[in-house]
Amino acid sequence: MKIYVGADHKGFELKKVVLDYLKKAGYEAEDVGDDHLDPEDDFPVFAAKAVHKVLGSEDKDARGILICASGQGMAIAANRFKGIRAGLGWSVDAAKATRNDEDSNVLALPADLLKTDRGQTAFDIIEVFLITPFAAAPRFIRRNVELDNL
Amino acid sequence: MKIYVGADHKGFELKKVVLDYLKKAGYEAEDVGDDHLDPEDDFPVFAAKAVHKVLGSEDKDARGILICASGQGMAIAANRFKGIRAGLGWSVDAAKATRNDEDSNVLALPADLLKTDRGQTAFDIIEVFLITPFAAAPRFIRRNVELDNL
Repeated sequence: MKIYVGADHKGFELKKVVLDYLKKAGYEAEDVGDDHLDPEDDFPVFAAKAVHKVLGSEDKDARGILICASGQGMAIAANRFKGIRAGLGWSVDAAKATRNDEDSNVLALPADLLKTDRGQTAFDIIEVFLITPFAAAPRFIRRNVELDNL
Repeated sequence: MKIYVGADHKGFELKKVVLDYLKKAGYEAEDVGDDHLDPEDDFPVFAAKAVHKVLGSEDKDARGILICASGQGMAIAANRFKGIRAGLGWSVDAAKATRNDEDSNVLALPADLLKTDRGQTAFDIIEVFLITPFAAAPRFIRRNVELDNL
């Protein structure tokens, strides 16, 4: 599974440990930036980079992971794009729900997840996001079609 | 402040207590549906109804509150629309962040917030969402413009 990881300055440190975690776990992870710590960089730039990679990937199960201070800005930005369903990963249960019900292909993470445990909570949330299958009930599929017709 | 409140079947019960809370608090709250409990109704329908009301309102500070099981589907749906910035209200801090940084005009709520305390946690999150001002720093304004240029 190909995974594109992006972050603004507030997510820069967590992005580093997430990329390390993903590579050690055997995933093909690509850093879409920011490539240095720039307090003036703008989250929509990196959301767009990751989203274009996910949508353009030959891997139909490609995913994006996007990190900013609260995760909110990244989720707003990613969800501007048809074909993207970005869930907010504030907890393991939240990540599981958005995979199961919406087949989310992008996970937005709050950078605060790094603070307490060097990223372990973030890793737990990411793992559930990556391994939880889409339930694919007809009503879920129908709602995903409606999302892209909005 | 005009507030448009929508929910699917999973958010139906919380929507009722939220509308009651808003009216008692003196807000002009409008229910955009679903108008009955229908297990087969689809969240994007009610997201679209609320969003069109917010974007078309003469009140430039009009807001939307959207409720589904996890809040994730509603946030994805609302963020499909230019001019909408939907934050996910999983906590008071999350609601505060998305108002302060992104000037969010829609709050997506997980229906589970009703379970433990008859909606009090949801009311606390909604209150912070409604009263927290946008910080309006130049970098925040610039990023919101970028969101609508994606």
